[in-house]
Amino acid sequence: MEKITPIKVRDYRISDGFWSNYQKLVTEVVIPYQQDILYDRVEGAEKSHAIENFRIAAGAAEGEFYGQVFQDSDVAKWIEAAAYSIMLHADKKLESDIDEVIDVIERAQQPDGYIDTYFIIKEPEHRWQNLQEGHELYCTGHMLEAAIAYYEATGKDKLLNVMKRMIDHIIDRFGKDKIRGIPGHPEIELALMRLYSLTKDKKYMELAEYFIDERGTEPNFFVEERKKRDWTIWNSDPFEATYTQNYAPVREQKDAVGHAVRAVYLYAGMADIAAFGDESLKKACEELWQSITQRRMYVTGAIGSAAVGEAFTADYDLPNDTAYAETCAAIGLIFFAHRMLQLTPNSKYGDTMERALYNCVLAGMQLDGKRFFYVNPLEVNPEYDGKITGYKHVLPERPKWFGCACCPPNVARLITSLGQYCWTESEDTIYSHLFIGGTADFETTKGCKVKVETGFPYDGKVAYRVIPKSGKTKVRLAIRIPDWSKNTCIFFNGEKIDINSTIEDGYAYIEKCFDKNDLLELCLDMTPHKVYANTAVREDIGCAAIQRGPLVYCFEGIDNDQDLNRLRIARNANITEKFEKNLLNGIAILKVSGYKMTSLNGLYSNQRPSAQSYELTAMPYYTWGNRGLNQMKVWLAEE
Amino acid sequence: MEKITPIKVRDYRISDGFWSNYQKLVTEVVIPYQQDILYDRVEGAEKSHAIENFRIAAGAAEGEFYGQVFQDSDVAKWIEAAAYSIMLHADKKLESDIDEVIDVIERAQQPDGYIDTYFIIKEPEHRWQNLQEGHELYCTGHMLEAAIAYYEATGKDKLLNVMKRMIDHIIDRFGKDKIRGIPGHPEIELALMRLYSLTKDKKYMELAEYFIDERGTEPNFFVEERKKRDWTIWNSDPFEATYTQNYAPVREQKDAVGHAVRAVYLYAGMADIAAFGDESLKKACEELWQSITQRRMYVTGAIGSAAVGEAFTADYDLPNDTAYAETCAAIGLIFFAHRMLQLTPNSKYGDTMERALYNCVLAGMQLDGKRFFYVNPLEVNPEYDGKITGYKHVLPERPKWFGCACCPPNVARLITSLGQYCWTESEDTIYSHLFIGGTADFETTKGCKVKVETGFPYDGKVAYRVIPKSGKTKVRLAIRIPDWSKNTCIFFNGEKIDINSTIEDGYAYIEKCFDKNDLLELCLDMTPHKVYANTAVREDIGCAAIQRGPLVYCFEGIDNDQDLNRLRIARNANITEKFEKNLLNGIAILKVSGYKMTSLNGLYSNQRPSAQSYELTAMPYYTWGNRGLNQMKVWLAEE
Repeated sequence: MEKITPIKVRDYRISDGFWSNYQKLVTEVVIPYQQDILYDRVEGAEKSHAIENFRIAAGAAEGEFYGQVFQDSDVAKWIEAAAYSIMLHADKKLESDIDEVIDVIERAQQPDGYIDTYFIIKEPEHRWQNLQEGHELYCTGHMLEAAIAYYEATGKDKLLNVMKRMIDHIIDRFGKDKIRGIPGHPEIELALMRLYSLTKDKKYMELAEYFIDERGTEPNFFVEERKKRDWTIWNSDPFEATYTQNYAPVREQKDAVGHAVRAVYLYAGMADIAAFGDESLKKACEELWQSITQRRMYVTGAIGSAAVGEAFTADYDLPNDTAYAETCAAIGLIFFAHRMLQLTPNSKYGDTMERALYNCVLAGMQLDGKRFFYVNPLEVNPEYDGKITGYKHVLPERPKWFGCACCPPNVARLITSLGQYCWTESEDTIYSHLFIGGTADFETTKGCKVKVETGFPYDGKVAYRVIPKSGKTKVRLAIRIPDWSKNTCIFFNGEKIDINSTIEDGYAYIEKCFDKNDLLELCLDMTPHKVYANTAVREDIGCAAIQRGPLVYCFEGIDNDQDLNRLRIARNANITEKFEKNLLNGIAILKVSGYKMTSLNGLYSNQRPSAQSYELTAMPYYTWGNRGLNQMKVWLAEE
Repeated sequence: MEKITPIKVRDYRISDGFWSNYQKLVTEVVIPYQQDILYDRVEGAEKSHAIENFRIAAGAAEGEFYGQVFQDSDVAKWIEAAAYSIMLHADKKLESDIDEVIDVIERAQQPDGYIDTYFIIKEPEHRWQNLQEGHELYCTGHMLEAAIAYYEATGKDKLLNVMKRMIDHIIDRFGKDKIRGIPGHPEIELALMRLYSLTKDKKYMELAEYFIDERGTEPNFFVEERKKRDWTIWNSDPFEATYTQNYAPVREQKDAVGHAVRAVYLYAGMADIAAFGDESLKKACEELWQSITQRRMYVTGAIGSAAVGEAFTADYDLPNDTAYAETCAAIGLIFFAHRMLQLTPNSKYGDTMERALYNCVLAGMQLDGKRFFYVNPLEVNPEYDGKITGYKHVLPERPKWFGCACCPPNVARLITSLGQYCWTESEDTIYSHLFIGGTADFETTKGCKVKVETGFPYDGKVAYRVIPKSGKTKVRLAIRIPDWSKNTCIFFNGEKIDINSTIEDGYAYIEKCFDKNDLLELCLDMTPHKVYANTAVREDIGCAAIQRGPLVYCFEGIDNDQDLNRLRIARNANITEKFEKNLLNGIAILKVSGYKMTSLNGLYSNQRPSAQSYELTAMPYYTWGNRGLNQMKVWLAEE
C-alpha cells in the first residue's frame, strides 16, 4: 500500500483573499473571545467555568465543578486552535497564556496520571465506571490532540507529557486481558493515532485498535457496565446500541448510524488505522463513506438529520427544516475525508471535504466570528423555528455561546489548521485537494516550494507555480477536478494541456520539469447551475438548489420580499451573477429567473396558485443569517 | 337569536348504500368487539380492565386498578355508542348487557356521589387534587353523555341518576364562592349542556359556564393546584398553559392551540353556551373556527399536526408525513361544527363536518371495523414510519387496540349517532347538512316526514321527498351547496330551479308546497379535481391533491409500482373514474395522468430527473391501509 501523508499545518502557509481573512478572524477574534469565555469574562454569555474547573481540581481555587461532563474538552479544543494559530503567526502573549493554562492542567493531574475535572472534583468515586456517558476518554482524546498540536507549534512538551501519563494510566487499565472498555463518544482513537504518528510507539496504536475492535462486540459493553452501577448522568439507554455505533463490530457496519459526530470521529479513527494496511477496516470505511455521502448527507455537506440523538436516521431522510446538521458533524466528516484521502486519492473525498467546508462549516460561524450555529438547517422560518414542536432546536439566528460549547472551538481549530487539508503527498506525487492560495513545503520534493494563487471560491482560476531551490525539478502534481466543474481546463505556460487522458479517480495527473517561471493554470467552470436530489429524498421532490463552484446558494427573505414559500425557480431559469465586493465580505450574488405565486385566500382551493415572473436573488449559503432575522431556503420548487 | 336545533338521533333513520353499512358494521362488529375488549375477552389485544375496574370499585371483585387514569371513559363511550345502536335497532340482549354494566357502575358510586375508579381504587386520598391530569371531570363528562344517550334510547334513568348525583357532588364542591377548579381535559362542559337541554335545570348550565369562564383566568389554576400537592401522574408542566387552552380567558383566545382533542371539545362546549345568546362567546367560537379551518387543518379535515402534545402548532404548519391528526380530534371538530351550525347556518361548518367525516374519521377505522388508527398521516412509508425519530407515532397499518383506547369507541358513537349531524331545524326552515339517505321526522313540520335517497358519496344525485301527513305542506328547505361542487343544480319534479338567487351563506333556500309525489333533486358536481394548498403550507408547495365529491383521494404503493416518491401529477392531468363494486366495499377508482421520474444514480446531480408518462391510480383516502403494508401519499408534486 502506497504511503500517502498529509502536509503539516505549518508547511502550508495560506495566503489568499478568502481563507487568510478567516484565519485572521479566528486568530484575532475567535480565539481571544473563546479564551475570555473559558475564563468567564464575557458578559451575557452562558457561564463556561472550564478553566476554573481545572483550577479547582488543581487545588488552586475552591468551588464546585460546573458545566457539562465534557467541559474539559472546551479547554482542549481552544488550546489546539491556539497552537495552530501560533504556527501561523508567532504570538508570545498567547503562548504564555497557554503555558499558564497548561500549568494548571498539570497540577490538576492525579498521582496515577488520571485527569478529568468532572470526576476529580465531583464524583471521584465514579472514575471509569460510566464510559457510556462519562466522556473521560473523549476529553482525553481532545486534550491529547491539543498537547500534540502545542508540542508541534512550540516544541514544549509539558502538556504532551501530562497526556502521555494519562494514556499510560489508560493502557494500564483497559485492553485485552485487562479491564474491558470502549468510549461512549469516540475521539481518543484518532488522537492516539496522532500520538503514534508523532512517537512511533506501537502501544498507542494498539490501544486505538483495541477500542476500535472492541466496539460492537458481545456482550454489549454499555449494558454490562450499566449493571454494575446504580447511577447515571443522563439516564442513557445502554441498549440503544446504534446511537454509539455499538450495534455490531465496526468491520460489519454498513450504514452510518447514531450520533453523527460520534460516528464520523469513529470512522476517522478507523481510517487512521486502516492506513497501516488493515484491509477489512478500509473496506468498512469505504462502505460507511458511501452510506453517508450517497444516501445520508445534505447538499451542504451537513450530516445527522435528526435532532433527537443528533443522529443519522434512514437513507434519504433529509428534512430541510428540521435538520440537525451539526457544525461539529460536518467538521468530523472533513476529518474522515482527510483520512480517506490518505488511503486512496479519489476526488469523491476531496469533493465532499470541500462541500462540507464551504457550506455547512462556514455557515456555522457568523461573519464577524462572534456567534455560532450548532444546527445548520436548509430552511428556516422565524415564525416557528425555536418555537414549535419539532423546530425548537432550529434557530434562525446564531446564538452567542452555549453551555454545550462543542462547535465554536471546533470551527476555530479546523480553520487554523486548514493548511493540512489542502495537500497530501506520496513518494512521487503531490495531491492538491483544496483550491486555497499559499506556499507549500513538501517532504518529497527536495526543497522546492509550490505556490498557489487564486481568487477561489469566487474565481475559478487557480495558478500553481513550482519553485525549485535552483534550476528545474520534475514534479508530479495531481489536481482534483471537482464534480461541479463541467468544463475544466489546465494550461501550462498558457498552453492548454489535454487532461482527459490523465484523469484517474477524479485527479488530473501532470508531470513536468518545472522552473520558477513556469505557470500551471487550472480553470474551473464556475457557471452557476441547478442541483437536483435523488427522487428518494422526499423533501426535495420537485425542487432545485443552486450551486456555483463549491458554494451552495440559498434564498433569504430579505432579498426576496420575505415570503419564500411563494417563490419558485423557473424550469429553464436564467442565472446571472454579480460581484459585490462590499457585501458580506465580498460575494457573488446570483439572480435567478423564477416566479412568485399568488397566495390563495384560504387554506385549500381548486385553483392552482397563479405565477408572476419574479427575479429571485440567491446568496451563498455560508453567509445566511448575517443580516437579521428572516426566512431562508436552499431548495425551491421548480415552476 | 333564532333557535336552531339538531334533529334527534332517533328522528333520522339512515338508510342508504353507504352509511347503513357503516352503522351495521358498528352495531354488529365494533360494539360487540369493544364490549369483549372492555371485558378482556380478546386474545392478543392490549388489556383493557375497564369493566373490572368498576367491579373492583363496586366491591364485586378484588384486584388493582389497571389502565389509564381515564380508563372509565372507555366504558362510557361504549355505553353511549351502544345506546345509539339500540335507538337504530332494538336489541334486548345488548340492553340487558348495558344494564348489567350500569348496575356495577351504580354500586361503584361512593356515598357522596363521587365516581371514578382510578381514584376510588388507587388513590382515594387524592380525589379532586389534580384536575390537570386526573381526568375526573373528563370521565364524568363522558359518563354523563352515556347516561343521557341511554336514557333517550330506553327511558331507563338509573345511570342518569348516578350521574346527576355525581354532578351534584361536583356542584357542591366547585364554582363561584366555592372551591376553584377547571378540567384539565374539557368534555364535561358539552355534556353538562346536554343535561341542561334534557332537564332545563339551570344549575347544569351554570356549572358549564363556570368551567368555561374560569379557564385562562389568573392566577393559573393548574399552577396553584400543583403547589398544593407533592405528587403527579405524568409530571405535566402546569405552566404549559397552551396545551390545556388555559393561557387566556376563552373569550380572548384567537388561535386554536394545544392538545387538539381538548381544544375542540372545549370549543364545542363554548358553542353550546353561545347558543343561549352569549355574543362574546359566539365571537370567540367564530375566531377559533377560522383559526382551525383556514390555517390549521389538513385537507382530510384532520387537525393537530404535532405528535408532541398531540397538538396544534402554528399557522400553515401541516406536515404530511409526521402529522398527528388524531381520529378523536377530527371527531371533536365535527362536534364543534355541529354546534356552530346551531348558531349560524353557514355551509363552511357543514363543508368541514363533511370533510372530516368522509376522510379523516372514516380512515380511522379499518373497513372490517376491527382495527383503528389514532394517527392519520397524509403520507406514509413503511421504511421509516414507526421506526425513526419523528416518525415513531406514524403507523402504516392500523393496530388492534391500544392501552389508550380513546379513538375506536369515539368512532363507534359518532357513526351510530350520525343522524343528528344531518339536519337542523329552525322555526321555519329545515337545514340539510349531510347527504345521507334516510327518513326524517321534524318537530316543526307538523308530522310530515322528509325522505332522502342518494348514492352519495359516489353519486352526486340526492333526492328529497317531503311527505305530509295528508295533502300538501309548505316546507322551507335549506340545502347545503358544498364548496367542492362547482356546478350544482336542483330540479323540482324534473324542472330546474334557479337556485343562485336563493343561496345564502352556502345554503340554497327552497320553499314549496310539497305533496308526497313531489321530487326535489339535488345534482352535485362530482367531477374529480385537483386541490391546491395555500402557498404558506410549505409541505404542499408545488403539489396537488385529488378530490372527488367530498372524498379526498390518495395514492398507494400497491396501485402505483410502490415507489411513490418518483411519481408526479401532470399539470394538465386528465382524470378518469371507474367504479369497482367489489373492491374495498365499492369505490370509484381514479386514473390520473402523470409521470414517473427516473431515479438518479447517487444523491445529487445537476441533471433534472427525467420524466416518463405514467398513469397514476388514486383511491379514496378513507380506504387506505386496507390492502397490506405499503406507501401512501395524498399530495403529489406536479410536473
